[in-house]
Amino acid sequence: MTLLLSNGDVDRLLSMRECIDALDLAYRDLATGRGTDRRRSDSFVAGPSEGSLYSLKSMDGIAPAFGVGAVRIDSDVVTWPTRSGNARREKVPAASGGRFVGLVLLFSSETGEPLAIFPDGYLQRLRVGATNGLAADRLARSDARTVGLLGSGWQAGGQAMAICAVRKVERIRCYSTDREHREAFAREWSDKLGVAVEPVGSPEAAVRGADVVLCATNTIDNVFFERWVEPGMHLSSIKRPEIEPAAIRRADRVVIHARDASPIHVVAAGIDVPEVREGKGWKLLGEIDFASLPQLHDVVAGTVPGRARADEVTCFLNNIGRGYQFAAAGGALYRKAKAAGAGRELPTEWFTQDVHP
Amino acid sequence: MTLLLSNGDVDRLLSMRECIDALDLAYRDLATGRGTDRRRSDSFVAGPSEGSLYSLKSMDGIAPAFGVGAVRIDSDVVTWPTRSGNARREKVPAASGGRFVGLVLLFSSETGEPLAIFPDGYLQRLRVGATNGLAADRLARSDARTVGLLGSGWQAGGQAMAICAVRKVERIRCYSTDREHREAFAREWSDKLGVAVEPVGSPEAAVRGADVVLCATNTIDNVFFERWVEPGMHLSSIKRPEIEPAAIRRADRVVIHARDASPIHVVAAGIDVPEVREGKGWKLLGEIDFASLPQLHDVVAGTVPGRARADEVTCFLNNIGRGYQFAAAGGALYRKAKAAGAGRELPTEWFTQDVHP
Repeated sequence: MTLLLSNGDVDRLLSMRECIDALDLAYRDLATGRGTDRRRSDSFVAGPSEGSLYSLKSMDGIAPAFGVGAVRIDSDVVTWPTRSGNARREKVPAASGGRFVGLVLLFSSETGEPLAIFPDGYLQRLRVGATNGLAADRLARSDARTVGLLGSGWQAGGQAMAICAVRKVERIRCYSTDREHREAFAREWSDKLGVAVEPVGSPEAAVRGADVVLCATNTIDNVFFERWVEPGMHLSSIKRPEIEPAAIRRADRVVIHARDASPIHVVAAGIDVPEVREGKGWKLLGEIDFASLPQLHDVVAGTVPGRARADEVTCFLNNIGRGYQFAAAGGALYRKAKAAGAGRELPTEWFTQDVHP
Repeated sequence: MTLLLSNGDVDRLLSMRECIDALDLAYRDLATGRGTDRRRSDSFVAGPSEGSLYSLKSMDGIAPAFGVGAVRIDSDVVTWPTRSGNARREKVPAASGGRFVGLVLLFSSETGEPLAIFPDGYLQRLRVGATNGLAADRLARSDARTVGLLGSGWQAGGQAMAICAVRKVERIRCYSTDREHREAFAREWSDKLGVAVEPVGSPEAAVRGADVVLCATNTIDNVFFERWVEPGMHLSSIKRPEIEPAAIRRADRVVIHARDASPIHVVAAGIDVPEVREGKGWKLLGEIDFASLPQLHDVVAGTVPGRARADEVTCFLNNIGRGYQFAAAGGALYRKAKAAGAGRELPTEWFTQDVHP
């Protein structure tokens, strides 16, 4: 049977710690080249309304440690409104019922057959969080207690979960541009994490004296600046432009997620995509030589060292998602789902065929 | 609702003529750049048995003429045995019940939502046939009556259907290495097409005097040679190595399917993939300058001329599949399925989500 799982199943079945462990295991295969990761591609055509685009995104990976291949697909109507002075990429919930469309398909690398299908939303956040968590595990001071969090949206929750999974965090100071939103976030996550999450009125108040700074915004502008860097800090980002290039250059040790950092963009004629257009969203590439930076999987495998001294400034740039993460985290999720008897069983015959295509 | 269709539905709903018409319409958008086509990627890791590999293949496309995006995925255990002296790529039916795994997912470019899911086997053949049929429509002599067919497998049937959809074919002479197989093919397709399909004992007997030569094998060796070229012939191939480079150079007019002809290969360390290895399967690339050849969509749109004289030798190389074909043909299929009330309706909510991933 092929398992159809929901976001609720993902949330219930796979903890952040388990997701970090899955990446920790699988990334060793990435370091030795045993696993494969197919670079993300984004295709764009004109969207259904003025200023909107239709975006079809996919990425693949095969994780031998879990015996699975994964394809992750996002099918979105996208807009780029300006909020609080920052340009943001926003998906429009244009599917029936005001919903979004993102799917992960998991396949067995032993038989080829489809093992599971599930929405990508929860696993997406888990694996982003787990990636930065895994990096923090190798790069943040072992006695890190105080976290500055920039952002209070969907990904900010994942980042908070992840740092709490790898360090004995005592306090998270959270800043985001919308006061009500950051206050609601602080209440929600104080409860969920059992850690004091405090809303603060400026980014400086969030990051001053922090052992770990987590950027978790959906802006395509810089949100953390060089003047805020302090000795011993670990800086962490989930989007390339969040950390000012000068701040990255101040770090003693910079690690990126993947060197193959440019998605394949397939853009229809006459279409202007803000993040593809030569512009500030991606200027970081021009100033930092990504190809010279060590990658997370090499740090995980131990072929590149992590933090060496307490006063070092370290920096992890989660510069692009990898299809491989969905294979690794999806593989761990699938094992747990099978063990728990979770999900809706669909006949595998629906998704297989008797012809050699 | 999201439609789950079967290969039987595809076979019943979409005729070869309709598939050719769908490509004819959609390829005009490809010529003007309005449609997008994301290059195929093949990922390989070690397979479950000695000499086998696990292959995860994907390709995407968005066809504005049908308002759909498509992702096509193949998840296969693959081997490369030698049959009758030729190396062949063969998929192992390793999924439960001895089945293969290939899927097409169709999405609306208006709402993002999943419109349909179906196995790729029948549409795969239809779109390959339709591509060569569309090319033959522009390149073969308008009075072509005699066809030489090399191959008697799954794709050969599609090629025979396609040429009969665009020309008043009177006779198809079929050669393949296995006598019983070509005789069975001839019986089956004579009935299906209402055209005399004759099995012959040599490739020369198939192609001599033919107006159209269709190569439809799964070999990675040359099967059609320069010495067989005759004035006025249209040569057609579904795999790069089928036609000897010298024969291609003899043609007055050569058209390829797509210039972006190299799949992205993501190969795990220590894995040897015969078709990726520098070797005869792909040597054509080194001898023919693909980047200088006109592409089918430009011929379809009329920006590059088709056949100009009766005695010209023309040649179409269906050198790689395109994700765009699944969007175009899948879009036409979906319209017919909706109109016919065909398929199994699955709740779209199974494949959508309320979180912004």
